[in-house]
Amino acid sequence: MPRSVDIGDLVSRAREGQARAVARLISLVEDASPHLREVAAALTPYTGRARVVGLTGSPGVGKSTTTSALVGALRGRGHRVGVLAIDPSSPFSGGALLGDRVRMGEHALDPEVFIRSMATRGHLGGLSWATPQALRVLDAAGCDVVLIETVGVGQSEIDVVALADTTIVLLAPGMGDGIQAAKAGILEIGDVFVVNKADRDGADRAVRELKHMISLGRKEIQGAMWRQPVLKTVAARAEGVGEVASAIDAHHDWMAAHGVLEQRRRKRAESEIEAIAVAALRSRFGDVRGGTALAQLAERVVAAEIDPFAAADELVASLDSA
Amino acid sequence: MPRSVDIGDLVSRAREGQARAVARLISLVEDASPHLREVAAALTPYTGRARVVGLTGSPGVGKSTTTSALVGALRGRGHRVGVLAIDPSSPFSGGALLGDRVRMGEHALDPEVFIRSMATRGHLGGLSWATPQALRVLDAAGCDVVLIETVGVGQSEIDVVALADTTIVLLAPGMGDGIQAAKAGILEIGDVFVVNKADRDGADRAVRELKHMISLGRKEIQGAMWRQPVLKTVAARAEGVGEVASAIDAHHDWMAAHGVLEQRRRKRAESEIEAIAVAALRSRFGDVRGGTALAQLAERVVAAEIDPFAAADELVASLDSA
Repeated sequence: MPRSVDIGDLVSRAREGQARAVARLISLVEDASPHLREVAAALTPYTGRARVVGLTGSPGVGKSTTTSALVGALRGRGHRVGVLAIDPSSPFSGGALLGDRVRMGEHALDPEVFIRSMATRGHLGGLSWATPQALRVLDAAGCDVVLIETVGVGQSEIDVVALADTTIVLLAPGMGDGIQAAKAGILEIGDVFVVNKADRDGADRAVRELKHMISLGRKEIQGAMWRQPVLKTVAARAEGVGEVASAIDAHHDWMAAHGVLEQRRRKRAESEIEAIAVAALRSRFGDVRGGTALAQLAERVVAAEIDPFAAADELVASLDSA
Repeated sequence: MPRSVDIGDLVSRAREGQARAVARLISLVEDASPHLREVAAALTPYTGRARVVGLTGSPGVGKSTTTSALVGALRGRGHRVGVLAIDPSSPFSGGALLGDRVRMGEHALDPEVFIRSMATRGHLGGLSWATPQALRVLDAAGCDVVLIETVGVGQSEIDVVALADTTIVLLAPGMGDGIQAAKAGILEIGDVFVVNKADRDGADRAVRELKHMISLGRKEIQGAMWRQPVLKTVAARAEGVGEVASAIDAHHDWMAAHGVLEQRRRKRAESEIEAIAVAALRSRFGDVRGGTALAQLAERVVAAEIDPFAAADELVASLDSA
C-alpha cells in the first residue's frame, strides 16, 4: 500500500520553489511510483517555459566544473536554474556507481538552484527513462534553464540531443583528434562547442580544427542556418563561461525566430509519447498466452524451426486476436 | 521493381562456402531489401551451430589487431571463421566514416574466413539492426565461430553482449583506471578479459586490479559460477592469442554443461522477436488517422494541454479501435 501523497500540495509547493517538494516530486517520477501519471498530469499546466540545455563530452573534459561555472553565470543573470546530472552507472547492476552528492558544493545552498543526480537504470546505456519527467518537475518549479549533464558515450549523447533545446559539446585540448570526434557523431549534435581547459597547449589548434570540421558538415534547418560557435573556457576559473551563456541565448533566439524551437519540442513530445505507447504495447506481449507465447516462439527460433520475422508475426497476430 | 534473386540458389552456394554468395546474402539483409524475410526463412534450417564471440574495448586497445590474431589462432584449429566488424558511424548522417576494406589483409585471401564491416545505421549508437541477420548468414555458411568486433562505447557494448555466446573485453595498460572501467559497465559484461599490449609498463598492475575488481562482482548464473579469466596478449606479435581461443572453448563448454548457452540463446531470440514485433506495432502509429495522430498529440503536449502518458493512452486506444 503506497503511502498517501498529496500531489496537488507538492506541486503547489514546488511552484513556490520549495526544494524539498521539488526533490520529492522527482523521486516520485524516478521510482515509477503509482503516482507517476498523477504527477505528470498535475505538472502539465505549468510546463513548457524552461529552456533545456544539454551538456555532453568525454570523461575528463571538465563537464562538472563547466556545469558548475555555467550555473554561476546563469544565476548572475537572475535565472532560476535546474541541473540534472546523469550518473553513468552499470546497466546490469542497476545502481549508480558514484554518488555526486558533494558536487557543485558552491551552489548547494542557493535556493534558486536545484541539483539532482539521476542514475541511468531502466534505460541501458542512455539517459534514465525518468529524465523527461524530472525535467518536467524542474520546468513546473519555475526553472528558467535546466542543464542536463551527461557523459558523452554513445547513446546518452544522442538521448540528450533528443531532450535539449540547445546542446553544448565540451572538448579539451589533446583529448583525441578530429576523426575520433567525428566517429562519436559529436559534430552533428552540437549547437555550441566549447573547448575547455583552454589554458593548455593545443587549445587554439583544437578550436581551428573543430571550426574547420564543423564548417564542412553545416546544414540548413528549416531553411535557415545556425553557425555553431566554438568557444574557449577555463571553467575552473570561470573564464569564458559568460560567453557560453550568451551563446545559449543567441541559439534560443535563433531557434525561436525560425520555428526550430517549436519543431524540436514537437519532435521531442512525439518521441516521448511513442516511447510510452511502445512500452504499453510491449507489456502486452507478456500477457499473451499467460506470458508463455514469447518464450515458446524463442525456443522454436533457437531450434531453427522458424525465423524471427515469422515468430514476430505470430506474436503480433496473437496480440490482435487476444 | 527489385531485380529478381534466386535466394535458394544463393543459400546453397553460401553453404558451400562461396564468398560471393555469402556477401550477397549479407547485402540483402543489410539493405532491408524486400527479400529480407525470404532470406531469413531460407537460412533458418541451417542456423544454430556457430559460436558467437563478441569482442569489445575502448578505442586504442588494439581490437582489430587482436581480432586478426584470433582469426589466425582459430584457423590454426581448423575452424571456418566469420568476422563482423561494426563500424562506428555518425548516427545522424547514416554513413560509415571509415571503410575497413584493408583491415586484416593477411586473412583476406583465406577462403575459410569471411570478413564484413557493417555500419551502425538504423540503430542509433548501437549495433546495426541487421547484425543478427548477418550473423545468421555466416552461421548458415558453416562458420564454426563468428567474431563480432565492436567499439566499446555504451550501447554497442551492451548490444554485443545480447548477441554473443561469449564476450571478450579487451583492455590495455594505462588506458584508464579501474573506476573508468566499472563506470562503463565492462566488468559485468566480460566472460573473458584480455589485457593487450602486455609488453608495456603497467600490464601486470592492470591484470591485478582487474582480477580484484572482477572477484568482487562475480555472481552465480544458473547455480554455477564462471571464473572469468584475465589473460595477457601482445596481439601484434600473436602472443597469448592461443590462450584466448582456449578460454573461448572453456567458456563454451562451461555454458553447455550448465544450461547457460541454451538460456542465452533463448534470451537472444526473445529480444530479437520482440524488437521485430515492436517495430511492426510502431509502424502502425504512423497509420493512425492518416499519420496525423501522433503529431496532433505532440502539439497538445507541447502546448501543455495534456501530459505524455495521457497522450500515449489516446494513441494506443486509437490503434485498438482502428
